[in-house]
Amino acid sequence: MTNLIYATVAIGVIGLLYAVVLYHKVKKAPKGNERMREIQSFIKEGAMAFLKKEYTILAFFTLVVFLVIGIVLPLGKNVSALNAWLTALNFLIGAFLSALAGFIGMRAATSANSAVANAAKDHGMSKALSLAFSGGSVMGFCVVGLGLLGLSLVYLIESNLPGFNPNEGIQDVINGFGLGASSIALFARVGGGIYTKAADVGADLVGKVEIGIPEDDPRNPSVIADNVGDNVGDVAGMGADLFESYVGSIIASITLSLTMKMPTSDTKHALYKILDGFASIDEARIAFAVFPFLICGIGILAAIFGSLFIGNGQKINPHKSLKLGTYITAGITVIASLVLSFVIFNSIRPFVAIISGLIAGILIGIFTEIYTSSDHHYVKRIADQSKTGAATNIICGISVGMVSTALPVLIIAISTLLAYYFANLYGIALASVGMLSIVGNTIAIDAYGPIADNAGGIAQMSNLPHEVREITDHLDSVGNTTAAIGKGFAISSAALTALALFASYAQVADINMIDILNPSVVVGMLIGAMLPFLFSALAMSSVGKAANVMIMEVRRQFKEKPGILEGTEKPEYAKCIEISTAAAIKEMVLPSIIAILAPILTGIILGKNALGGLLAGSLVSGIMLAIFMANSGGAWDNAKKAIEQGQGKGTFEHSASVIGDTVGDPFKDTAGPSLNILIKLMTIVALVFASIFGNGIFG
Amino acid sequence: MTNLIYATVAIGVIGLLYAVVLYHKVKKAPKGNERMREIQSFIKEGAMAFLKKEYTILAFFTLVVFLVIGIVLPLGKNVSALNAWLTALNFLIGAFLSALAGFIGMRAATSANSAVANAAKDHGMSKALSLAFSGGSVMGFCVVGLGLLGLSLVYLIESNLPGFNPNEGIQDVINGFGLGASSIALFARVGGGIYTKAADVGADLVGKVEIGIPEDDPRNPSVIADNVGDNVGDVAGMGADLFESYVGSIIASITLSLTMKMPTSDTKHALYKILDGFASIDEARIAFAVFPFLICGIGILAAIFGSLFIGNGQKINPHKSLKLGTYITAGITVIASLVLSFVIFNSIRPFVAIISGLIAGILIGIFTEIYTSSDHHYVKRIADQSKTGAATNIICGISVGMVSTALPVLIIAISTLLAYYFANLYGIALASVGMLSIVGNTIAIDAYGPIADNAGGIAQMSNLPHEVREITDHLDSVGNTTAAIGKGFAISSAALTALALFASYAQVADINMIDILNPSVVVGMLIGAMLPFLFSALAMSSVGKAANVMIMEVRRQFKEKPGILEGTEKPEYAKCIEISTAAAIKEMVLPSIIAILAPILTGIILGKNALGGLLAGSLVSGIMLAIFMANSGGAWDNAKKAIEQGQGKGTFEHSASVIGDTVGDPFKDTAGPSLNILIKLMTIVALVFASIFGNGIFG
Repeated sequence: MTNLIYATVAIGVIGLLYAVVLYHKVKKAPKGNERMREIQSFIKEGAMAFLKKEYTILAFFTLVVFLVIGIVLPLGKNVSALNAWLTALNFLIGAFLSALAGFIGMRAATSANSAVANAAKDHGMSKALSLAFSGGSVMGFCVVGLGLLGLSLVYLIESNLPGFNPNEGIQDVINGFGLGASSIALFARVGGGIYTKAADVGADLVGKVEIGIPEDDPRNPSVIADNVGDNVGDVAGMGADLFESYVGSIIASITLSLTMKMPTSDTKHALYKILDGFASIDEARIAFAVFPFLICGIGILAAIFGSLFIGNGQKINPHKSLKLGTYITAGITVIASLVLSFVIFNSIRPFVAIISGLIAGILIGIFTEIYTSSDHHYVKRIADQSKTGAATNIICGISVGMVSTALPVLIIAISTLLAYYFANLYGIALASVGMLSIVGNTIAIDAYGPIADNAGGIAQMSNLPHEVREITDHLDSVGNTTAAIGKGFAISSAALTALALFASYAQVADINMIDILNPSVVVGMLIGAMLPFLFSALAMSSVGKAANVMIMEVRRQFKEKPGILEGTEKPEYAKCIEISTAAAIKEMVLPSIIAILAPILTGIILGKNALGGLLAGSLVSGIMLAIFMANSGGAWDNAKKAIEQGQGKGTFEHSASVIGDTVGDPFKDTAGPSLNILIKLMTIVALVFASIFGNGIFG
Repeated sequence: MTNLIYATVAIGVIGLLYAVVLYHKVKKAPKGNERMREIQSFIKEGAMAFLKKEYTILAFFTLVVFLVIGIVLPLGKNVSALNAWLTALNFLIGAFLSALAGFIGMRAATSANSAVANAAKDHGMSKALSLAFSGGSVMGFCVVGLGLLGLSLVYLIESNLPGFNPNEGIQDVINGFGLGASSIALFARVGGGIYTKAADVGADLVGKVEIGIPEDDPRNPSVIADNVGDNVGDVAGMGADLFESYVGSIIASITLSLTMKMPTSDTKHALYKILDGFASIDEARIAFAVFPFLICGIGILAAIFGSLFIGNGQKINPHKSLKLGTYITAGITVIASLVLSFVIFNSIRPFVAIISGLIAGILIGIFTEIYTSSDHHYVKRIADQSKTGAATNIICGISVGMVSTALPVLIIAISTLLAYYFANLYGIALASVGMLSIVGNTIAIDAYGPIADNAGGIAQMSNLPHEVREITDHLDSVGNTTAAIGKGFAISSAALTALALFASYAQVADINMIDILNPSVVVGMLIGAMLPFLFSALAMSSVGKAANVMIMEVRRQFKEKPGILEGTEKPEYAKCIEISTAAAIKEMVLPSIIAILAPILTGIILGKNALGGLLAGSLVSGIMLAIFMANSGGAWDNAKKAIEQGQGKGTFEHSASVIGDTVGDPFKDTAGPSLNILIKLMTIVALVFASIFGNGIFG
């Protein structure tokens, strides 16, 4: 059975090859006139400068954590030095692969933007959409390709190490891979979120509000930083976030497969009948562990096939075209999962768990659209409330965001119950695997957004004709909707993944139950529920601080170089990029320390059960806060756009809606998405260090 | 031992007599000139009109619930018809007493306002403070007097009913009393919160912003509704909220005393040694049940004594004077609890549990002040961020509110662990009793706020001299701080009470453990964590809707009666009062239904363990959201005031801060406080209906 993983190695390679093909397509596409190429190179250099700085810090950070894992873990119960250093090694591998995916994805995205603008100029919508989606797909297929390939190789090689029993060892070391992915995600999401909003707020408040020049005006010194920020946040940040969920869901499945108690006499247990078909429990365990690899393999192939349908035809509707790609990908995955479920387990049960997650992901996307798109009444209500000013706009937006938590949570609840009912704890891990199996497609659609947005910026800054702007604007507005959907998907997949990792933690820490009636657990829950609020607050005040520095810098440039506004002098774009980069790196230190130390300290002081409470508390409060903040932000954004298209800019309503949108920026692009990382990271920290936690001082 | 409860009956009567004395002091105090008396009578009539309407609806609601309890409960396991109807009867008693306290308290508060304005005119600060505090104390002592007297009598009479074993019966029926208190609190807090903010926003947006007349201008048709709203929200709402916590904490102690498993052989159990001193477990149970009554009795006497120190001397600082009263009250309670703990249990353990709650309440008050008072750097930072506009003001305010969750939660956590460590689950109930023992004082200080505020309004509307305004303004600004502290106290006491009731629920529902690893429990937690978000959203959009109707009405009056602005025509105050009243009653239907049905449906469909998860989830997310919203709102309010005193009204910063303050209004006065009710109400609904829940469809 383990040999089937060679197939997923191959599929991982296929995914990467497809990414290479798309990368070359984007690379060789004409990039337009000299002005366009110049702006594109500014954005690319800015993005690379950020990555370089970030990765330098990361190299240091990962080295420290590598040593900590190797040295601290053997202090726990039954952890050999070999296991500890393998975990540390896997940590490095996970971190490196996530960083690599981010690097390649960013290069492709920042290369695609001018190509898309040029295609819109020379060939129209269809070709522009195809190029933008290809640019985004590089990130998508790098994430799934590197994720699946990396995990498959680690599994194959390390389970066959001498003196290492596959049934007892691999689950204890492979979580290091997840921790590596989480660490990069932390830097990319939190740092990226601060970067992008500092640049955005700086560009808007001085450029648009104080000086009165339009958006994407090349005279604005922070305009390039703003464009870089779109990529840093929505390409690198989102990619690393979903890479973490992707590998996390597979790791949780493996851990549960190899550690959970199997029913030998309990005929009512969901897995009892499935076990019947295997010669031994051990053989079944291996099949359980291999199955999620195969599902993810299917997902990659399906996403490749689905991507072929996007951007074809002469008169296309980009929104529908992207949706079609998703539905084809999902459809193939569903059918192939059904077949695989019967071939491997002779049972429909694993299949039901898989699709309960997959369908939940798609449904949450649809609901996210309802709450955040201007076609539906929530956004219209916010726009309407702008007539009585900014305060009512904001109260309404907050209330829409809060209401929007209800349906996604019910969907996750039903999906969890179904998955458990059909395949016990393993089912919950399968649901997260199912939801994430098509993530190559999701990331591609999501990364398409900033590419289209940047293409619009380049078209504006290069004074391309009006019709070109119309095409890029249309692509961009579709991108806003898909970005909101992508955020909804990222949150729900983080929730399911964290849930699966949480179940794994309990198995690995040898916890039979986590009883809420135990006060340590309640206290853990209280602290856990508080952390997302603290984390969000820190992220938002970081944006405030960073934006202030940016505002000072932009004002300084306008003041010291009056030629900038007249168009005779070039603004110093690099200065603004430097400021965003430095602020992002500096401001993420404190939140990162909290996210890593909170579970470790709770585990040591209050014990492993209280730590379980902490994880559960942060999971439930983090999901709500993340959905609320993402959807409020998306709804405010689109309410502003709706007013711009209706009453127009400069009206009273518009000023009110701009304030709402500005409040929403750090909500949806910094604090909200950071919470995905927080809940996953804390769970995986607990999982990796499970062996060092005891019963705490009250135990 | 049970006979000691006759003493608490007596103390309850003493508390009420003291309330009567204060009521007469307020009543006979001169109310100033004709104009002042006229305005006072408008406010009083408006408040009574609201109460009359509210109580009419409530009478119908309580009758329905009375019948439901009596008919549905016997469907559960082992519930006799006698028990069911006794529970229903206690429900009526609890509801009636809470409503009665609200009624008397409101009459006193709306009578005190003009007396305070007049005292400020004729006698200066000291006398004005004394009268304002006396007015608030009527509510305070009615709440504790009626609460303690009612519960004591119910306990004495019903435990001695023929065919009714005190060890098996009273705990099954007395929770009806708590449900009654919760129902009134729901109406008073949610309805009151909507009322007050609809009036406030209406008065501000049309009067101050559109027409440009000052606050508290008698030409504004909604000015009286606004003044009424202060009483409806902060007197009746806060009083009913804390009445619910007060009786809830006593009920939880009784329930745990009579039902929790007692350690007969577990020498490590916190209560093991205490039991040693009693002839039998049953005798010990009675002592456990009687003890919280005595602590509350002490609290009442201490609060009476403490109140004598407030408002004395010629040159007083109102803030310090109020604090002195609190510290004297708390000090006496601490010493007497120590004595009682040794006399009854020959152990310091119950005492430690009591003071862990009491000190936690005081500490949380202090921290609330740090986050919301303009003397500290958080509010200063918000004021500072107003320089870059409303958006940065709002982002900063939200971030301050979110950060402010951390310390209160840690304090509650430590208090819970200490209480449990020293007296097990019973200790957690004692901690909430300890925190609430001095609530007579807390309510008095809190209700003092709107009295001072109204006094200022009356002084303004009656054109009293500048010096009078200065005194009432100073009293009012102290009232703002104490209101914020009161909110912090209300939240933390709701949290501890809900925790104690939660533990009681588990005992009564015969649940040995609520395991987070059980997916039904996780799903319950997810749904539970979502409900506070949904509830807040509904509360806020209700305010929006109600305010819109109010805005239309005020605009109509200004348009149809141009004489109003010229001062030749009287505005129709009653119309605005009617609108606020009708909106409040109408808009609270949906949230109320959700709060009552969510636990019942979860208990029936997913089972009693999942319901435990729901209660825990809503508790942890509700506390965070409540603290966040209350403190953001308080901080915005004071940031605006700081700017008014610094840069002044009409500046750019000021406009920005007004937007923040307006957003904060429904945060701190509607949604935030409503969450206290939600978490307690759901827990007590679960407790009352515990017998009808099974293991659910997945069990």
